[in-house]
Amino acid sequence: MHHLKLDPKAKEEARQRLISAKGHLEGILRMLEGEPYCVDVFKQIKAVQGALDKASELILKSHLREHVVTAHERGDVEEMVSELMELWKYR
Amino acid sequence: MHHLKLDPKAKEEARQRLISAKGHLEGILRMLEGEPYCVDVFKQIKAVQGALDKASELILKSHLREHVVTAHERGDVEEMVSELMELWKYR
Amino acid sequence: MHHLKLDPKAKEEARQRLISAKGHLEGILRMLEGEPYCVDVFKQIKAVQGALDKASELILKSHLREHVVTAHERGDVEEMVSELMELWKYR
Amino acid sequence: MHHLKLDPKAKEEARQRLISAKGHLEGILRMLEGEPYCVDVFKQIKAVQGALDKASELILKSHLREHVVTAHERGDVEEMVSELMELWKYR
Repeated sequence: MHHLKLDPKAKEEARQRLISAKGHLEGILRMLEGEPYCVDVFKQIKAVQGALDKASELILKSHLREHVVTAHERGDVEEMVSELMELWKYR
Repeated sequence: MHHLKLDPKAKEEARQRLISAKGHLEGILRMLEGEPYCVDVFKQIKAVQGALDKASELILKSHLREHVVTAHERGDVEEMVSELMELWKYR
Repeated sequence: MHHLKLDPKAKEEARQRLISAKGHLEGILRMLEGEPYCVDVFKQIKAVQGALDKASELILKSHLREHVVTAHERGDVEEMVSELMELWKYR
Repeated sequence: MHHLKLDPKAKEEARQRLISAKGHLEGILRMLEGEPYCVDVFKQIKAVQGALDKASELILKSHLREHVVTAHERGDVEEMVSELMELWKYR
């Protein structure tokens, strides 16, 4: 368990976006009960991924601002840098 | 409305993956009720996006196989190509 | 060796873009002879990648239009679909 | 002009990779003098982009380690965070 915690404001904003993404996903599941065109389903899935990108960007930005820029003072530079490089490759 | 429909087998496989992604998303929402570490939340969101990628790849593959490779015979080459190039840029 | 060839017009357009990307890359190498700021170098590399994206999109579009939409008639559907799905994941 | 400079070791490593990417790009230009298959050219372009990714990751990692983790001490947190979020979206 890490002692650094997601900032409450960023957490609430991310939560709102994830709730919205979940609603969108439920809409796609209803769409699949009919006979949709492939490309329309594909685009809806990409829209959900876009919403998830926004949520993960909020979290990343908060992490940079709250934890990464203070790593040298805290003394966990290598851990912070390695984690960020791992996230970078998740793209 | 387009007359080409998503193949029933691909639709069912995509549906299973979307249901699983929705469950994963609900898990992240529960995680946010506690005090998680930013990077852990970020990774979970990326895992959901990975599951959505699998669903959209299933749909794309079915679309290519059922509709794109027959576009010349059907006479809608430009429409099929434009749509695919648009999807390509969604990445 | 594959018997399908890149369309001459698309080839020439891609060539022009690759020549331009090469010039841009040479500019970055000159920039590295000085003492540039990390973020400026990073952005220049991304600009070259953007130019390469344009070149690969030209080639993809030509491939879809010349070869993929006729795959059913030619009888190589599975090969065309597998190749495209592989390219898709290169993103 | 920014006063923060790319670390010499990272600069040299990035330079080596960019020289290698340039050689690869010249190879693709020679390939286009013949009659290549679309998919083969596409894959070669993606390989160059992969090499450029490695170069930009080296630079990013050096930037994080040398400049971002000390931003709070230096007092340019918002500038560092904004720049990184911009780079993030370049993906």
